[in-house]
Amino acid sequence: MRRIPVEVPAHGAKPYDVIISGGLLDEAGKIAKTVVKPCKALIFTDNNVVSFYADRVEKSLANESFKVFRFVYESGEERKNLQTVEAALNYLTENEFTRTDLIVALGGGISGDLAGFTASIYLRGIDFIQIPTTLLAMVDSSVGGKTGCNLAGGKNLAGAFYQPRCVICDPDVLETLPSEQFACGVAEAVKTGILGSTQLFDLFRGGLRKTDIPAVIEECVSIKARIVQEDEKEAGIRKVLNLGHTVGHAIEKISSYTIPHGYAVATGMSIIARACAKEGICSSQTAQDIVTVLKENGLPVETSFSSDEIYSVAVLDKKRKNDVITLVLPQKIGSCLLKEYDVKAVKSFFEKGLT
Amino acid sequence: MRRIPVEVPAHGAKPYDVIISGGLLDEAGKIAKTVVKPCKALIFTDNNVVSFYADRVEKSLANESFKVFRFVYESGEERKNLQTVEAALNYLTENEFTRTDLIVALGGGISGDLAGFTASIYLRGIDFIQIPTTLLAMVDSSVGGKTGCNLAGGKNLAGAFYQPRCVICDPDVLETLPSEQFACGVAEAVKTGILGSTQLFDLFRGGLRKTDIPAVIEECVSIKARIVQEDEKEAGIRKVLNLGHTVGHAIEKISSYTIPHGYAVATGMSIIARACAKEGICSSQTAQDIVTVLKENGLPVETSFSSDEIYSVAVLDKKRKNDVITLVLPQKIGSCLLKEYDVKAVKSFFEKGLT
Repeated sequence: MRRIPVEVPAHGAKPYDVIISGGLLDEAGKIAKTVVKPCKALIFTDNNVVSFYADRVEKSLANESFKVFRFVYESGEERKNLQTVEAALNYLTENEFTRTDLIVALGGGISGDLAGFTASIYLRGIDFIQIPTTLLAMVDSSVGGKTGCNLAGGKNLAGAFYQPRCVICDPDVLETLPSEQFACGVAEAVKTGILGSTQLFDLFRGGLRKTDIPAVIEECVSIKARIVQEDEKEAGIRKVLNLGHTVGHAIEKISSYTIPHGYAVATGMSIIARACAKEGICSSQTAQDIVTVLKENGLPVETSFSSDEIYSVAVLDKKRKNDVITLVLPQKIGSCLLKEYDVKAVKSFFEKGLT
Repeated sequence: MRRIPVEVPAHGAKPYDVIISGGLLDEAGKIAKTVVKPCKALIFTDNNVVSFYADRVEKSLANESFKVFRFVYESGEERKNLQTVEAALNYLTENEFTRTDLIVALGGGISGDLAGFTASIYLRGIDFIQIPTTLLAMVDSSVGGKTGCNLAGGKNLAGAFYQPRCVICDPDVLETLPSEQFACGVAEAVKTGILGSTQLFDLFRGGLRKTDIPAVIEECVSIKARIVQEDEKEAGIRKVLNLGHTVGHAIEKISSYTIPHGYAVATGMSIIARACAKEGICSSQTAQDIVTVLKENGLPVETSFSSDEIYSVAVLDKKRKNDVITLVLPQKIGSCLLKEYDVKAVKSFFEKGLT
């Protein structure tokens, strides 16, 4: 069993562990009991994941005297909205959940974000635990405390910084994950390698081997935990985690979210890497390494959208501070820098990466 | 000008000031500029308050180079819901508000709660300033960082602990306040006297004089700020602020919110005071003083609802921890104690106060 402690000093939140091991799903109750007393526990999941794993988690919680409830929403990005959050809040009220009760997020990043946000605002905050069931959620969204939902105007525009009491990663559940979703997790893991670890990045050369998955999760969580500890509220260094995301979010949005997040981020990283090579920020070899590794792991590295389209959507990005956008730029594998661009200068930079 | 500093160490929030002086509405821009750089500023208000004060606040902000926007919702408790919050969030997105922009809550407690909650979740948190226009909001809801909205199941069941950057109190605006609403503010101020200051309580004997209003606001804010500083998230001592509220919230809800909050709290305090006298927790004189002073200030001290009705609604109160309710009980003017009751024992206690 791998156990990575995460401390978030700025927020007054309690430290918590990310625990990684095959078969952990059946230990959910025992692990939950180490952080909260037995209480009401709401399994917050979608209609896909519920049929695969909810019974096992429910049984495990019930065995440890938790009184288990389920909130099941219809899967998909289009349900990641305030209506779903309100439905969950009403379900909690109807079942008389109190401040000492618990939400268990079971699923991918969307379930984690929605469940965490719901936990953060119900009675102004109750405990929650994450059980990520996608590689993406394991390596990325279950660490860092970003929770939230989409608004009509864009992705993740409403939310809270709110930390789980623990994160339970069972890599065995990835067996049932569709290959496209697996690739999306790989995209964020490659990103973490680019910005923080050549060793991690090298695990993806020639395509990720299944036996390396637990090591990838551990390495990603450790790097992200370190960054988040330094900068919970994204005032500075944490921004490196947005590598590929300004362009990626724009691509997702232009496609009306038909292009998955990880694919969009992979394309975003490729565009940024090529632009950086042309600007002399990284070597051509580094850019080529990034693009090649993404390709070798089944990820797209190009888009048919124009720099005009990407630019106009990217300027509404919530990271924009007045007329300045901070971009994350790879210098070499394992190291990125943050650079502020005037919103007007960004367009020509994007263009360089598209051609 | 009276200036009361509020520090909230637990949350990582910045300290802020509550500033009290006649005519401050026209200084809103100058005061805002001391805490944030000129930026987009959304005046968040309702359709009543907007016609009285929005122009003056807008002018004052614009004079200091803020770019001013307005979000106006229809006044009333029934609009204190997630739909109004979502409409405000969408308005912010449409007008491209970023993380460095500002929300200005202009109005009573409902506007403050909604605007603060909106600020807390938009882009996971932007700055906000409170300009309370009711006595209730000045003495109570603008200090403490409680923000939120109602759910179908009850009042204030969703929300966040989120601190304003400053609070601007202009007692002159109370001139336009309907007498019923003024009395509601008095109820919370009397409550603050009961739990923390005989001197404050004495200002209300025989009915509050207008010239004493600034002193009442200052005293209430100071006492509440001191309590909130000790216990931002209501883990302990802050619970004393709920004096009269468990019963009060139940009365409000049973009346379908036709009985105003302050009236319900006044009745709640009277019921609790009478019950305490019967149980020997306070003297009969103390209970009589409380009831008399509330009456002298135009507040109700009795209800036609039964202890059955009040009990069944009160047990869903969000402050309930498992099967225990913590009640706040006056011992004498200026001092209250917290006592945990088994939910089943609470009913007979309520009954004592009703007769």
